[in-house]
Amino acid sequence: MATIAFIGLGNMGGPMAINLVKAGHKVTVFDLVPAAVKTVTDVGASSADTAVAAARGADFVITMLPASRHVEGVYLGESGLLAALDSNTLVIDSSTIDAATVRKVAAVAKERGIAMVDAPVSGGVAGATAGTLSFMCGGDDDAFAKAKPVLEAMGKNIFHAGGHGAGQVAKICNNMLLSVLMVGTSEALRLGIDNGLDPVRLSEIMLASSGRNWTLEVYNPAPGVMEKAPASNDYKPGFMTELMLKDLGLAMETAIASSSATPMGALARSLYASHARNGNAKLDFSSIYQALAEQ
Amino acid sequence: MATIAFIGLGNMGGPMAINLVKAGHKVTVFDLVPAAVKTVTDVGASSADTAVAAARGADFVITMLPASRHVEGVYLGESGLLAALDSNTLVIDSSTIDAATVRKVAAVAKERGIAMVDAPVSGGVAGATAGTLSFMCGGDDDAFAKAKPVLEAMGKNIFHAGGHGAGQVAKICNNMLLSVLMVGTSEALRLGIDNGLDPVRLSEIMLASSGRNWTLEVYNPAPGVMEKAPASNDYKPGFMTELMLKDLGLAMETAIASSSATPMGALARSLYASHARNGNAKLDFSSIYQALAEQ
Amino acid sequence: MATIAFIGLGNMGGPMAINLVKAGHKVTVFDLVPAAVKTVTDVGASSADTAVAAARGADFVITMLPASRHVEGVYLGESGLLAALDSNTLVIDSSTIDAATVRKVAAVAKERGIAMVDAPVSGGVAGATAGTLSFMCGGDDDAFAKAKPVLEAMGKNIFHAGGHGAGQVAKICNNMLLSVLMVGTSEALRLGIDNGLDPVRLSEIMLASSGRNWTLEVYNPAPGVMEKAPASNDYKPGFMTELMLKDLGLAMETAIASSSATPMGALARSLYASHARNGNAKLDFSSIYQALAEQ
Amino acid sequence: MATIAFIGLGNMGGPMAINLVKAGHKVTVFDLVPAAVKTVTDVGASSADTAVAAARGADFVITMLPASRHVEGVYLGESGLLAALDSNTLVIDSSTIDAATVRKVAAVAKERGIAMVDAPVSGGVAGATAGTLSFMCGGDDDAFAKAKPVLEAMGKNIFHAGGHGAGQVAKICNNMLLSVLMVGTSEALRLGIDNGLDPVRLSEIMLASSGRNWTLEVYNPAPGVMEKAPASNDYKPGFMTELMLKDLGLAMETAIASSSATPMGALARSLYASHARNGNAKLDFSSIYQALAEQ
Repeated sequence: MATIAFIGLGNMGGPMAINLVKAGHKVTVFDLVPAAVKTVTDVGASSADTAVAAARGADFVITMLPASRHVEGVYLGESGLLAALDSNTLVIDSSTIDAATVRKVAAVAKERGIAMVDAPVSGGVAGATAGTLSFMCGGDDDAFAKAKPVLEAMGKNIFHAGGHGAGQVAKICNNMLLSVLMVGTSEALRLGIDNGLDPVRLSEIMLASSGRNWTLEVYNPAPGVMEKAPASNDYKPGFMTELMLKDLGLAMETAIASSSATPMGALARSLYASHARNGNAKLDFSSIYQALAEQ
Repeated sequence: MATIAFIGLGNMGGPMAINLVKAGHKVTVFDLVPAAVKTVTDVGASSADTAVAAARGADFVITMLPASRHVEGVYLGESGLLAALDSNTLVIDSSTIDAATVRKVAAVAKERGIAMVDAPVSGGVAGATAGTLSFMCGGDDDAFAKAKPVLEAMGKNIFHAGGHGAGQVAKICNNMLLSVLMVGTSEALRLGIDNGLDPVRLSEIMLASSGRNWTLEVYNPAPGVMEKAPASNDYKPGFMTELMLKDLGLAMETAIASSSATPMGALARSLYASHARNGNAKLDFSSIYQALAEQ
Repeated sequence: MATIAFIGLGNMGGPMAINLVKAGHKVTVFDLVPAAVKTVTDVGASSADTAVAAARGADFVITMLPASRHVEGVYLGESGLLAALDSNTLVIDSSTIDAATVRKVAAVAKERGIAMVDAPVSGGVAGATAGTLSFMCGGDDDAFAKAKPVLEAMGKNIFHAGGHGAGQVAKICNNMLLSVLMVGTSEALRLGIDNGLDPVRLSEIMLASSGRNWTLEVYNPAPGVMEKAPASNDYKPGFMTELMLKDLGLAMETAIASSSATPMGALARSLYASHARNGNAKLDFSSIYQALAEQ
Repeated sequence: MATIAFIGLGNMGGPMAINLVKAGHKVTVFDLVPAAVKTVTDVGASSADTAVAAARGADFVITMLPASRHVEGVYLGESGLLAALDSNTLVIDSSTIDAATVRKVAAVAKERGIAMVDAPVSGGVAGATAGTLSFMCGGDDDAFAKAKPVLEAMGKNIFHAGGHGAGQVAKICNNMLLSVLMVGTSEALRLGIDNGLDPVRLSEIMLASSGRNWTLEVYNPAPGVMEKAPASNDYKPGFMTELMLKDLGLAMETAIASSSATPMGALARSLYASHARNGNAKLDFSSIYQALAEQ
């Protein structure tokens, strides 16, 4: 079993750290919020007063932070983690941030002989709690091989997408596509309903046809089709509109930097931005269905 | 076994009629093109000089025609089929046309005591030949129940979408969604490739994640990912750009009539219209991927 | 002065007919709504009990009707106007309908030796009342030349767009473009405001730059920039969202029929459809600005 | 007359500096490309070996650089301009860059007591040569008042958009709107042409109606309508597709940062990205018209 420092115990990080403890790892955690720390120490983790203290002597450092600036803040600079770690430690950043920041931090790490893996996740709070997250990893083969067994304590699918930053790129490609599936499926269901079809029957037909996609399988956006989907529970998240909007922002920034054309992804970002502004930021992202329905 | 008249022996109708013959039905065909007729009589069908002659005494009349005006032309008017058939015959129209025309023809049929089912298909020429089409049917429960065994000789999935026209609505909802899946998947793959990812690996990741959809399963638009997909065979169809454009036109006309909002479907139609105009009308519809790639 | 029959006295037709009376023409009107008739007879028009009775002996018949089916109903069939008129009468249809219906009616008219002009208008109720409408006309040069003096009693700009139906095509091209100007201008103003700019100053800058367009000139969608614009008066119409949606539907049907690519026009239609469904159908079409603003 | 240092003598900067010399200012220039320097010294400017040497003792420093990183490179750091200038010098940056970089540089300038104005331009090479550029300025009232007379030697319209960065925001709002006008006008013209209208006549009609916009006035995208427009000269720029794509990238980054919804602007960016990838990066941006036309 490994010695692991876990930095960042939010909605996702908390249950992820707990799963590491349950798997038998020796986990030391750090977060600015005492209550978040307590949740994890209650199940057997230690805690530390600073990120650096938590990381001292660890085999693995895992960070789960809200945005690029937090990741830079924790790792870089004279008082950052990379200045304090020795080269035996493997760094795993599971935050969803832009690939450019990943590459910048990984380059500093490399100068100090420290291996790093970017490993953003999909699967939401439910997946974090159940230990069924998907990890999309970027980094060298060796680093990925070393990280994988640890990630398996928190997730079901552990993918190696490519070099540094590739995990982030894979995640935003996937989530951009997910947003398109969600809007497209909502449109198709509404068009059917507006023309007299029953959404349950239409969903069955498309699920068995070339319209099949993840949202029809497990996350139908029309109320009443799937009992457990957010759509049937007042669009309680799930995955919030504002988080999808954040991921689409990352996707668009990536597309701008690579001069890529993403007409549907770009449209999805604007539809979600408008939807968030109309009071739906905290609703599940499948609530975009409502923007197409008679209010 | 049933006595069946089959009208319209194009790329789809020909192999569909052949499958009916192979299933042991007594089939009489009609088409204006002698070569098309010969293909089916060669395997054992009879032929007739007019649609009405083919239909005389049949248990079932099946039509597979290019557009609404052909369907109206064959069924309506003094010399049309509905004036000639008796009420024992079940009419099945498998053409992809607008739901309004279906309802108009079905209403005339009803006046004469003739039951009708609209039963457009998906699955393309390959599915027609293999007998694995999906049929999306509209009509009364009784008529559907009577049509189903006959359709099973030509297809694998026989869906009952609702009343008259519901088959057409279900089909265009599905195909509109398919177009969105195709464009969205193409964008996600290109965005990944533009940022250094391998399309095979990215496809695997998204297929196992929330980006999963039919195009990633069986019809990947990036060349080289799937050996048998059109993308790996110079985008030889498959399902042509101009046919997707036709279906998207039907979807948009339906959306206009019901005041439905279909932002992604509408965008897909314009992208396909532009793609067709740029010389790609006869390529497979997955070639929209190329519009996003460096030429 | 001419003898004119005017059929259809709605929000637009009423004031148009009144302007014909004021210009000294001998006007006989017909409408199903007695109150609408009275408004025009009060200023000196005669009325008739049927459209045919109103049209008897007239030099000009002008119709202003809500949709294609009404135009077909009034003109075609055994009891329609075209069966009753003689070839000295010039028919002017000012309804906004699809070009195909115009061509169908014009063809029947031609068989009977009756000349016809399609002459849809822009300028709204305010323009109809003030006599400052724009007419976009389709038809032969002779017919246009004959219609022009009469139209000048109701409008300021009388354009000859081309042959039969060209007036309708010009109008929907213009109105599709207008919808794009309105949404694009709303986006640009919101983006500026969201980043600290004053909408008045930003409007001045864009008006003097390459962003200049009709909406910035006379119809600014941001509240408070123009005192008399609908935006500064709770988006009271003006030109209602649902009417713009109707025109965009006609534009999209035309685009589908000609396989034209209209990515922005198609997006505008879906944004307006969604906007209408969210309770804004009766607001001015510049209220699309609100869909982009924090609610 | 003022002493002015001008840094960056590209396609735009060169003619701008020449206009300052012609207006009687004492101009010292710096650029890495000797030929670019020579063009301006030929008309009477002095040159210097470094940016800092050029700026020494100047009343005004004007920079015209390709991207944010160049602006940061020239101004910031120990050997940058801001470390060398004294507080009598007014800094004017006419580069088109993101507002965040402007604010960062302006903050450093302020610490050193140096006033700064961001003053991006529109009008293209033709406007730079003719001295008819539009300047959209951000900065304090005093700084703007001081900069204005100098800018008037290079431009016709000098706008004060607001505080630091507001010039950049105004420019990208305007150019995002311009891209929407261009695509929307192209669509409307193509839709008309596809339905039998003459583009000259349709342009006249829309120019006199609510579709009026800058592109119809001076930059018609349909070949043959305006003799001097790029469209009538094989789409020779003018304003290149790749430059519009750059500006749309800046606009989208700004929209992402402020969570703004820009559906049309986002669509325009993807259409231009696709257009650039299809071999049109160096053509005038009005060539987007061709993407909608039969090839």
